[in-house]
Amino acid sequence: MTFISSLQWKGDHLLLLDQRQLPHQEIYLKQTAIEDVWNSISALVVRGAPAIGIAAAYGLVLWSQHAETNEVSTFKAELRTQGEYLASSRPTAVNLSWAIDRIIRVSFSLPTVEKMKEAILKEATIIHQEDELVCQRIGEHGLKLLKDGDTILTHCNAGGIATAKYGTALAPLHLAKQNGLSISAIATETRPVLQGARLTAWELERAGIDVTLITDSMAAHVLKTKKIAAVIVGADRIAANGDTANKIGTLGLAHIAQAYQVPFYVAAPLSTIDYSVPHGDAIPIEERDPKEITHYQGERVAAENIKIFNPAFDVTPHHLIKGIITEHGIIRTPYEENLVHLSLPDDKNTEVHS
Amino acid sequence: MTFISSLQWKGDHLLLLDQRQLPHQEIYLKQTAIEDVWNSISALVVRGAPAIGIAAAYGLVLWSQHAETNEVSTFKAELRTQGEYLASSRPTAVNLSWAIDRIIRVSFSLPTVEKMKEAILKEATIIHQEDELVCQRIGEHGLKLLKDGDTILTHCNAGGIATAKYGTALAPLHLAKQNGLSISAIATETRPVLQGARLTAWELERAGIDVTLITDSMAAHVLKTKKIAAVIVGADRIAANGDTANKIGTLGLAHIAQAYQVPFYVAAPLSTIDYSVPHGDAIPIEERDPKEITHYQGERVAAENIKIFNPAFDVTPHHLIKGIITEHGIIRTPYEENLVHLSLPDDKNTEVHS
Repeated sequence: MTFISSLQWKGDHLLLLDQRQLPHQEIYLKQTAIEDVWNSISALVVRGAPAIGIAAAYGLVLWSQHAETNEVSTFKAELRTQGEYLASSRPTAVNLSWAIDRIIRVSFSLPTVEKMKEAILKEATIIHQEDELVCQRIGEHGLKLLKDGDTILTHCNAGGIATAKYGTALAPLHLAKQNGLSISAIATETRPVLQGARLTAWELERAGIDVTLITDSMAAHVLKTKKIAAVIVGADRIAANGDTANKIGTLGLAHIAQAYQVPFYVAAPLSTIDYSVPHGDAIPIEERDPKEITHYQGERVAAENIKIFNPAFDVTPHHLIKGIITEHGIIRTPYEENLVHLSLPDDKNTEVHS
Repeated sequence: MTFISSLQWKGDHLLLLDQRQLPHQEIYLKQTAIEDVWNSISALVVRGAPAIGIAAAYGLVLWSQHAETNEVSTFKAELRTQGEYLASSRPTAVNLSWAIDRIIRVSFSLPTVEKMKEAILKEATIIHQEDELVCQRIGEHGLKLLKDGDTILTHCNAGGIATAKYGTALAPLHLAKQNGLSISAIATETRPVLQGARLTAWELERAGIDVTLITDSMAAHVLKTKKIAAVIVGADRIAANGDTANKIGTLGLAHIAQAYQVPFYVAAPLSTIDYSVPHGDAIPIEERDPKEITHYQGERVAAENIKIFNPAFDVTPHHLIKGIITEHGIIRTPYEENLVHLSLPDDKNTEVHS
């Protein structure tokens, strides 16, 4: 069983596994400046909501290590500016701004730039370490929903390489494997960027977990004709009422799962919940380069002179979600009420750090 | 406005537009023997249920032109064998065996091999010509469901190149264009073979019809957030109760359309109805080469050492279908009753030839 770490902090630089090159090559890109991290998040070198939160935290560390001012107010102003800059690299995933806010919060009360720099590095490291623990908890809670021999269907890659370790939607599979249980996966290829075919299939195969690849369009046929215990997906942002933005295609899967009475779960850390967003319609949906659809490796596949629509995410309404698997357990309807209880910072920190 | 003809009969050979090369190259492959036609159907040189029916008819013409026996019983036995051989080229589309049965039926009552050969050629030509008329009628009936400015969503390619002309699901769009109406299309790319990206987008763009390409996984987001008048798809085989086998992904689209109360229509000639099959579960589902999913132009895209499931079709239950647009008009529920009325050969021929 091989666990791949997609982020490695090396004291003065960050190594990011270039997920665009998977499954063919395992290349780590050295990030020495905040601009490197911005580009890597935007270009999908690093992807997955938790992983880009961690990468952004280290991005601020890289900036702070090169910051030359000793003036606290100048440093603070610039830290805010750099945080906003990093947050612009991808608009949908909330973990990005969550991690940036954490870095800003812990450092802002400190009296000197030096102490602020220390605090930024420490907090980035904590965010990184916490995520592994959080994902392990998500896996443990998710595993309670499954039994030996089950098959789940998943979309995109909410796996170990999308987080510090274990993943979110894939965490139950990794923990099952650790515990000697056999849980199989159906992975949708996840067009246009093929995170399912390239990343999920690769990650599970590397971990010795049985995985079958299908196209996105085959999900309904599979849910109708095969025995699937659950659909489990990750999340990029969860609104206060439980509406969930995730990789494009998630919404359709949720409808299809409902039609075949297969329980549909979202697996995500609490950092994915954006309490400032009351419902899913208020979540910004990133639209990406049309070439992701029309081209393959620089070569045009699709017909010429046509329009393209390439939204990277969709929003699944909470009523289609059977439960949200978090590090605090499985949150169920009514989400508005049950999610708000989790937003108390004391509870949250107690649980996560315990 | 350019209409592309995917099949051209040239007296002693058939020209087939190689749809695998679209949209990049328009190459016609010369078919001089029945084996050429078998290979072309199997390899998707020619695809689309009506078009492969026409191709199969000409395939039998090619065989008959080279048949050397003057012995009626030998000729008949061999014709049956060749028909079964051709029918094995793709198992799901019923138009294939429908066309072959027609060829056999018209020729079997004749006294000499020469007359049988003449009848086979004549019937193949009729099947070809009829299909254009049938598709035009489908387009006229379909157009009644739409109004100027509407947008429809379609899957795969049920277009002019999948038939003699006009197509089935795309026929209303082509006729709207001829009549000076503006109806737009959202085309799903249709993994794994990308008939939507390569064929539908190309065909509609060539015809001057507004088309927007999306991945299959974007359909739910589009049906939720954009104003779509209808989903219209083709069919490879329709059971006696209205259950419809069509390109993989159709079933999911039907569920999603229902969730957003967008009417879901199947457009198909009556030849697509298989009265011998009582319901959709009895339709054989072709599974194709895993490489269609794992590879692009010979190069592996997906992770290695994983399982692949590649069904080419799925079956949409009749209760999700708002209507079946045929050359006889729009058939609605109860399908079992309303479809059986159309199976009377006299009615059928009167209407089609009138």
